[in-house]
Amino acid sequence: MDSHGHGGDIFAYENIRYDFSVNINPLGMPESVKRAVAAHISDFETYPDTKYRALRAAISDMEQQNASHIVCGNGAADLIYRLCQSIKPENVLVCAPSFSEYERAAAQAGANILVHRLAEDNGFCLTDNILGDITEDINMVFLCSPNNPTGAVIPFELIEKAAGKAAENNALLVLDECFLDFTDAKSAKSLILTYGNLVILKAFTKIFAMAGLRLGYILCSDSDVLEKVDLTGQCWSVSAPAQYAGIAACKLSDFVSRTRELISRERSFLTRGLRSLGLTVFSSNANFLLLRCALPLKEMLLEKGILIRSCLNFRSLDDSYFRVAVKAREANTALLDALGEVLR
Amino acid sequence: MDSHGHGGDIFAYENIRYDFSVNINPLGMPESVKRAVAAHISDFETYPDTKYRALRAAISDMEQQNASHIVCGNGAADLIYRLCQSIKPENVLVCAPSFSEYERAAAQAGANILVHRLAEDNGFCLTDNILGDITEDINMVFLCSPNNPTGAVIPFELIEKAAGKAAENNALLVLDECFLDFTDAKSAKSLILTYGNLVILKAFTKIFAMAGLRLGYILCSDSDVLEKVDLTGQCWSVSAPAQYAGIAACKLSDFVSRTRELISRERSFLTRGLRSLGLTVFSSNANFLLLRCALPLKEMLLEKGILIRSCLNFRSLDDSYFRVAVKAREANTALLDALGEVLR
Repeated sequence: MDSHGHGGDIFAYENIRYDFSVNINPLGMPESVKRAVAAHISDFETYPDTKYRALRAAISDMEQQNASHIVCGNGAADLIYRLCQSIKPENVLVCAPSFSEYERAAAQAGANILVHRLAEDNGFCLTDNILGDITEDINMVFLCSPNNPTGAVIPFELIEKAAGKAAENNALLVLDECFLDFTDAKSAKSLILTYGNLVILKAFTKIFAMAGLRLGYILCSDSDVLEKVDLTGQCWSVSAPAQYAGIAACKLSDFVSRTRELISRERSFLTRGLRSLGLTVFSSNANFLLLRCALPLKEMLLEKGILIRSCLNFRSLDDSYFRVAVKAREANTALLDALGEVLR
Repeated sequence: MDSHGHGGDIFAYENIRYDFSVNINPLGMPESVKRAVAAHISDFETYPDTKYRALRAAISDMEQQNASHIVCGNGAADLIYRLCQSIKPENVLVCAPSFSEYERAAAQAGANILVHRLAEDNGFCLTDNILGDITEDINMVFLCSPNNPTGAVIPFELIEKAAGKAAENNALLVLDECFLDFTDAKSAKSLILTYGNLVILKAFTKIFAMAGLRLGYILCSDSDVLEKVDLTGQCWSVSAPAQYAGIAACKLSDFVSRTRELISRERSFLTRGLRSLGLTVFSSNANFLLLRCALPLKEMLLEKGILIRSCLNFRSLDDSYFRVAVKAREANTALLDALGEVLR
């Protein structure tokens, strides 16, 4: 098991040639972002702007959302914890399998966890069944689109129904769209004015390959929720490098569309290749794929210098499930070649 | 009042030539730290090491403390909040005046705040009187040496007595030494093996002029406390730039001693100059000075392009107290000149 229960812990291993355990944009960090960090190193001497005024304006432009509807954090994970700490929900509904930090953050804030199990025979896709679980005793719901680790996108109409059901029950719906920009799916951000209880969670981490810089944000129209999250924890959570890098990233024009094309092409290539090796691959819209295989694939691939994500510690899954990132062609080919060898 | 109640919010003003509201090392960020950040920009693509193994080893070497006794955070402020969130103390003792984040973090974690008032006629120095306030209903005590905003160092013997009294009452003593490296005073870190309830808080922020990078750490020998703080919040709180910069900073040889010489000389210069202008200056061992003056000095100096810290929002103080940083000679002279003009 990974030391912290997530992918990307390459520091715990030696001789990793390809890290498929973490879902970072294979195009890498844009050159303009690197230049922005390099150009501002002397500015890292002083405290960061606690109101991140320039960054907020840049995100507002990029997302076409009101600047006052944005709160940033030290990565999306920071915001998940601050949401739970500030709202202090009594009962929190999460899906399984899904990103484990929702449940961990809610439990740290003292919440009871209720679990909506996604059905494997339906490819772990979210259905209208979720609506029945958003009952009046639920205070907060976490949904993830595309879902980690399955890659399944939640239909826009279902998100709207869930937001409405949550609103009826005075519950907050936190929708994690951290991987949505890798897909062609439509963001639910257009719903935040109608549904004040809808919080969209996004990050620069994956799409702009800035995971080490830590920068995430929420979009929400409820000033009470925004203020609570903003005032929870220290006021200097967003570092100066994250702010300058984020501003540069927001100004990119075709980086996200080029990413989508690459991911779409490579996801098809990798899915076909994995299936032709006899592996069960769940249908994904994201930049990662969930596999099922009875063999200890992670250990087998480590011997080839390739790290993949065991899904042992995802609720509902076990050690026969694995998550692999969709990377660039050379890496994907290396993965398929290595799998071909170890499965022979 | 400052927008977030702290110094350093230069983003809220225009045309600031000198920022005396924030206590950053006037030597600036060391060149080797800047080079380390620049050299590793491509490494910021991937997630930071959640165990910050190399950084921990470097701090261990610099502090001559066991690596297992170190937990790092997104600045010292992050650790203040994580300490309160994880320990969940019922009653917390703070001094007044002192750094406001102790009280804010404790209150966010649901604690009652008890205040030990420092006496102005004693130069706001901590005395043995604190021991009487460390009663059996206290769960956590925050002390700051040198104290912010007064600059008064707590005698080593008093810290040991306070740690002992806290231990008798099963209370944690959190000692903030974030500014101690600017003084000639002895750290209390040698006491952590004897007093498992002693938590030393330190930061790279001020002494290495890395405030924008956010990096702090605690030293403590109690594995239960360390684990609780480590497991509170997200596992990626320490960014990759902070880790690489911190490693480079730990390797510096005479940077801290050069800083001390500069601060000692300039503190004397600035104190004499301020007193000769008729201002009340409290005795300080740190890289900042607390002043008393009935005039609206902050507004008067803003017109000269100089920002100082109003102490209006420090408990026990009011708008007749100001804090100014000790900077390099040219800046200090500019401050004295500007004050001479506005006070004329």
